[in-house]
Amino acid sequence: MQIGFIGLGKMGANMVERLLRDKHEVVVFDVNKITVQESKSKGATGAMSLVEMAKTLKPPRAIWMMVPVGPPVQRTIDTLLPQLSEGDILIDGGNSFYKDSVRRANQMKEKEIHYVDVGTSGGVWGLKEGFCMMIGAEEDVFRRLEPLFKSLAPENGYARVGKSGAGHLTKMVHNGIEYGLMEAYAEGFEILSASDYDLNLYQIARVWNHGGVVRSWLLELIEGMFRINPRLENIRDYVEDSGMGRWSVLEAAEKNIPAPVITLSLQTRFRSRQEESFAGKVLAALRHEFGGHSVKTK
Amino acid sequence: MQIGFIGLGKMGANMVERLLRDKHEVVVFDVNKITVQESKSKGATGAMSLVEMAKTLKPPRAIWMMVPVGPPVQRTIDTLLPQLSEGDILIDGGNSFYKDSVRRANQMKEKEIHYVDVGTSGGVWGLKEGFCMMIGAEEDVFRRLEPLFKSLAPENGYARVGKSGAGHLTKMVHNGIEYGLMEAYAEGFEILSASDYDLNLYQIARVWNHGGVVRSWLLELIEGMFRINPRLENIRDYVEDSGMGRWSVLEAAEKNIPAPVITLSLQTRFRSRQEESFAGKVLAALRHEFGGHSVKTK
Repeated sequence: MQIGFIGLGKMGANMVERLLRDKHEVVVFDVNKITVQESKSKGATGAMSLVEMAKTLKPPRAIWMMVPVGPPVQRTIDTLLPQLSEGDILIDGGNSFYKDSVRRANQMKEKEIHYVDVGTSGGVWGLKEGFCMMIGAEEDVFRRLEPLFKSLAPENGYARVGKSGAGHLTKMVHNGIEYGLMEAYAEGFEILSASDYDLNLYQIARVWNHGGVVRSWLLELIEGMFRINPRLENIRDYVEDSGMGRWSVLEAAEKNIPAPVITLSLQTRFRSRQEESFAGKVLAALRHEFGGHSVKTK
Repeated sequence: MQIGFIGLGKMGANMVERLLRDKHEVVVFDVNKITVQESKSKGATGAMSLVEMAKTLKPPRAIWMMVPVGPPVQRTIDTLLPQLSEGDILIDGGNSFYKDSVRRANQMKEKEIHYVDVGTSGGVWGLKEGFCMMIGAEEDVFRRLEPLFKSLAPENGYARVGKSGAGHLTKMVHNGIEYGLMEAYAEGFEILSASDYDLNLYQIARVWNHGGVVRSWLLELIEGMFRINPRLENIRDYVEDSGMGRWSVLEAAEKNIPAPVITLSLQTRFRSRQEESFAGKVLAALRHEFGGHSVKTK
């Protein structure tokens, strides 16, 4: 089917490639003209602007946004909306906060434009393995888009999980879990690396991936990392987060639900980014106060 | 090859079955005579006692213990040791504390008996999928036993990870990680279950298993659980632990390494087993003291 595609970053370009492989007619736009050229060389039609894209697409249109969360999503919507008409579908495949998606869907409903939230997992590996997609939409709108989901996802790798917002909510929690899984593996390998045995972490990850209870796709990535760089030399212990983890923590608080491990996994990332911990300074100074314990000074 | 096998519980009986399939000559013993009969019906030779087992096996012997951690392992060793001679190999395939295994190996070394620690993962699924094995042994002793490991493990599913103790240490950390992974999934599904959407947790686990970053063998088990029992009715939130998790936490403390998520995953299990939390009572009472906040009374 015909689809407009906005945002040809790491994931977007790979998604367009999967769509083209299945003979969908893809009209692409990105502020980076080089990526547009690359998609054109693979069979896409390029648009010079969002307005041009909207004019190129035959109504009722379907347009997929794969742009960074926050202001870029809002700017894209604001530019595009005056060009859209009744029955068009606008899809946010990025990592937007699910309540923003519900709000946007409600706003567009007034103009009878459908807004669909798609939580997309798979990262840079999605081109090869397919993207896992959690979709929030009305049933009939989901059915209209299903040919696209079939091309993008692996078999059984997409589902309409509920109405508007449910897709991004599900993806948010997926990423919260991901933080916890990553932290658990990371701590385990640190314990092993500090043992008195000279353990081969690559060998251990590999054997665990063959029959171990902890086997997983993430552990396969870890195995590959240790194979190439057994001590992770030249990699700093500085870990970013990009929203979904902290929204999971906020959601748990809003619902009065304990989620201690997901919360702590987020907070260890905060700590990883501090050059110096003020709390650590307080602790050291306080031990000195009551116990006369020595402090390290600069 | 010929092997003595002690302990025909959930995992032991399945391991014996895999050994028999590959035409190893297995002499079995268990205090439960019914399980011995079952293994005999599949081709094993039964022994009425540990002494009889030792006499039946041709020196140099290889004997595999798959008995519960702690006193049962020690009792088995104490009974068996007078029957063993130079060059024999005794294998502990259970979840013993790695320092106990090092101590036992050193004690037996004086009598030139080899003690091998094998961390075994795979649970009740091992019969079908093979058992993942982390082995602590001298290289030549490992080579002697390799035909057994080949029969028990899936392809690439066993490795000698180091000298004595390394196998059980590696399995200990494997299980520590397992606690963290399980807790992360559990918290995520609780957040989803409390959302305002009526989400189908089976559907979500299934779609995540097809291309999601969090896909894993544990998530496949979760998918199967929710397929049959979507709200886990009739299952209490009471969670046991069996040693490896808490030893991982102790190991981290001994090495001055932070392992907050593995530690917290263990502690949420402690909390799950309390009918009432004394700390919770302290908090409620203290809020009342300083803020006049109401307390719930019995």
